[in-house]
Amino acid sequence: MRFENPVPLSEIAALIAARIVGDHDAAATGINEIHQVEKGDLVFVDHPKYYDTSIHSAASFIIINTEQKVPEGKALLIVDEPFEAYLKIVSAYRPFRPSMEAVAATAQTGPGTVIMPHVYLGNHVTIGAHCVIYPNVTIMDHCTIGDNVIIQSGTVIGSDAFYYNKKTNRPVHYKKMISCGRVEIEADVEIGAGCTIDRGVTGVTRIGAGTKMDNLVHIGHDTLVGKNCLFAAQVGIAGASVIEDEVILWGQVGVSKTLTIGKGAVINAQSGVASSLKGGGAYFGSPAVPAHEKKKELVWIKRIPQIWDRLNKSESSS
Amino acid sequence: MRFENPVPLSEIAALIAARIVGDHDAAATGINEIHQVEKGDLVFVDHPKYYDTSIHSAASFIIINTEQKVPEGKALLIVDEPFEAYLKIVSAYRPFRPSMEAVAATAQTGPGTVIMPHVYLGNHVTIGAHCVIYPNVTIMDHCTIGDNVIIQSGTVIGSDAFYYNKKTNRPVHYKKMISCGRVEIEADVEIGAGCTIDRGVTGVTRIGAGTKMDNLVHIGHDTLVGKNCLFAAQVGIAGASVIEDEVILWGQVGVSKTLTIGKGAVINAQSGVASSLKGGGAYFGSPAVPAHEKKKELVWIKRIPQIWDRLNKSESSS
Amino acid sequence: MRFENPVPLSEIAALIAARIVGDHDAAATGINEIHQVEKGDLVFVDHPKYYDTSIHSAASFIIINTEQKVPEGKALLIVDEPFEAYLKIVSAYRPFRPSMEAVAATAQTGPGTVIMPHVYLGNHVTIGAHCVIYPNVTIMDHCTIGDNVIIQSGTVIGSDAFYYNKKTNRPVHYKKMISCGRVEIEADVEIGAGCTIDRGVTGVTRIGAGTKMDNLVHIGHDTLVGKNCLFAAQVGIAGASVIEDEVILWGQVGVSKTLTIGKGAVINAQSGVASSLKGGGAYFGSPAVPAHEKKKELVWIKRIPQIWDRLNKSESSS
Repeated sequence: MRFENPVPLSEIAALIAARIVGDHDAAATGINEIHQVEKGDLVFVDHPKYYDTSIHSAASFIIINTEQKVPEGKALLIVDEPFEAYLKIVSAYRPFRPSMEAVAATAQTGPGTVIMPHVYLGNHVTIGAHCVIYPNVTIMDHCTIGDNVIIQSGTVIGSDAFYYNKKTNRPVHYKKMISCGRVEIEADVEIGAGCTIDRGVTGVTRIGAGTKMDNLVHIGHDTLVGKNCLFAAQVGIAGASVIEDEVILWGQVGVSKTLTIGKGAVINAQSGVASSLKGGGAYFGSPAVPAHEKKKELVWIKRIPQIWDRLNKSESSS
Repeated sequence: MRFENPVPLSEIAALIAARIVGDHDAAATGINEIHQVEKGDLVFVDHPKYYDTSIHSAASFIIINTEQKVPEGKALLIVDEPFEAYLKIVSAYRPFRPSMEAVAATAQTGPGTVIMPHVYLGNHVTIGAHCVIYPNVTIMDHCTIGDNVIIQSGTVIGSDAFYYNKKTNRPVHYKKMISCGRVEIEADVEIGAGCTIDRGVTGVTRIGAGTKMDNLVHIGHDTLVGKNCLFAAQVGIAGASVIEDEVILWGQVGVSKTLTIGKGAVINAQSGVASSLKGGGAYFGSPAVPAHEKKKELVWIKRIPQIWDRLNKSESSS
Repeated sequence: MRFENPVPLSEIAALIAARIVGDHDAAATGINEIHQVEKGDLVFVDHPKYYDTSIHSAASFIIINTEQKVPEGKALLIVDEPFEAYLKIVSAYRPFRPSMEAVAATAQTGPGTVIMPHVYLGNHVTIGAHCVIYPNVTIMDHCTIGDNVIIQSGTVIGSDAFYYNKKTNRPVHYKKMISCGRVEIEADVEIGAGCTIDRGVTGVTRIGAGTKMDNLVHIGHDTLVGKNCLFAAQVGIAGASVIEDEVILWGQVGVSKTLTIGKGAVINAQSGVASSLKGGGAYFGSPAVPAHEKKKELVWIKRIPQIWDRLNKSESSS
């Protein structure tokens, strides 16, 4: 999320009752995901495992629950509960004020674009030229759609991230991380019917130019999909993963979170991608491995009865 | 389904041309699923396998195609075709009269609740306080939604049960079991975009307080989901299953019908749950087994080529 | 696609700058898929692998990128790029002119049919008698729905085919094959919530009489589903496959493209059908094999540790 105008760090510190360590006089331009941050951004971190990555990321301001050495030109905002501080910032700078019009007054559409009946366009939605948005599509606040994009019926762009803070005091329960991010669909993308693309928690979920996806595909929050990818029906990708250019995912493939699939990789139908995969190769299985390995494995399994017979003979002859 | 007012058993018997055995003077308060019935309820049964369970359930009145001994304070309604009798009862006491308004006059919403454009709320829908129902959501007749519930766009609550009576006379075909049940969403539940939650056939499909589900999740009829569960995207649960509290189902997990997953169980992505699983454990595979067993199995499979080589050596040396 | 009136071959040849070889004076009645063509139809082919099938199909006119011997009573339309010629024909004879009304003036519905709020019916949609179309359903142009059909909320009938021409000049990208086909839903079909059924590219996607499908099911373009089939939730079928009568697909089954599943076959949950399967049998696995084979395989895998132990003993004793 980018703030409408840069916000003085002192104002944010007052809002979240934080102690500033480092540059007091700066202003923050927005708040963002750790794998998407830029100079001027806030990030927040509450787990020691991610302290270093956060402090040494491109982010200028780190909301954190411990004091650490601050690099030159940065500042820490120290609070007990960074997660709660984050919620306060979102409530203050991007409060939930949904448009109750079918097409918000602040939504903009380019020339030649067709918006069909029962479409909902939220606040500050921007749609390029020569797009077709089919009936019963929902596009939520702050999402942007490039030129020549086609979105089939029933699809939802910019639903909330599925991201919760687990509270382990009994009973175990979940507190929502309010999403203030957005979805960006680049030019020449085509999205099938009944798909769901979640907004970023604080960052962006991006679908690269020329990518085509079939029906009932799910794309999680903050996932970055490259250019000219092809996703068959019922593919699901969890949050904050990176799918590089020209990747092909066949039907019902599942992809786990925060991993990378390299350029041009092809994943066979129904595979489950559990960890990062190099570009160029073909993969199969759940968990997915190189397709030729999986194929060999299937052949080996078929040989077990033969092994059993030979072992019987071997034992009886000895 | 609960009748608007208790219905004399004699009235029902006349409607379905049944012979009453047992208490003639009683009145039925509703009709329900065998795993959800209460005192005063009707159930129906046409398969000998389920005669005993039905007669000795909490139900007071059993529509059945054979005469059996009746326990004290109960009654049998004997007909040739209990399934057809059921259809007559539903047509009489809950006839299909859909509201043709976007929001039915009989729908009620609590304070602070936001109903966004292109939402459909059917007859007798009740929504609590401080909920957000996003655009293009459909909530069908008699469903109830608790406080602080969030339902993302495109989701359907209360679609008909997928439940048919198979007719084996040629050609094999299917006759619909008309649904008269409902969906109950408890407080603090959050449901993603593009989900579908079927109503009970006669009973309730319940989502317990605090449960969160991601996009494109399917929940079958009469399934009872506990509190504070977490379901990732594209999970599917068939009918009449019980998912206890704090269960986690990761992406694309499938769960079969009429089984139980115990409290706190965690099912890895893409697993298929074919039979009941004990609480507390982690499971993986299709069919799902304890995750550590599945992990070992994958290691054993990788050893087959080595076994093959050793067997070759063993044979050539003997 | 059937043309509104037969179109003289000379008119089409002029439009796509084709050289006619064969019968010059004929008129084409439509354009169709190779597995659905009838006398009078155009087809197009640009790959040598399919030249023979196309020329000797029921089609009368073949748009092709090479000269071949023409059978009696047929004609070739020779162009450099049959794919581009196809796009020109669709633009000329079925231009994209979506109805912007919620229910198009050219849509027709039979007696006793209920169309609920927020439904979209496109141009030339025909719906039979005694149907129920639930809220937020989308039915696109030229689709036909038989009598006694039920379509649950959120479902999309007639979305575009997921069919692209791969352009391998860098960067690899995809050019849309514009769909001009349609969907035909026969009588007594019931379709769950959140399903998507793509239109044919040029032909028809057909759901046979009496077939029932649960929620979130995807059916690809030009697929022909037989009568009295049963598809559980989250099943996905790719394009141009044939599912014969009385086939049962359990939950989350995936079916690949251009294959046939024979009459009465039953496919277990989460299986992946990668090639044609004979009727009558039960199948399981990804890729799907006869269920009893898969079951045996699972037993054999469990014996590997025992094999390992016996081999250890055998080696130490020799």
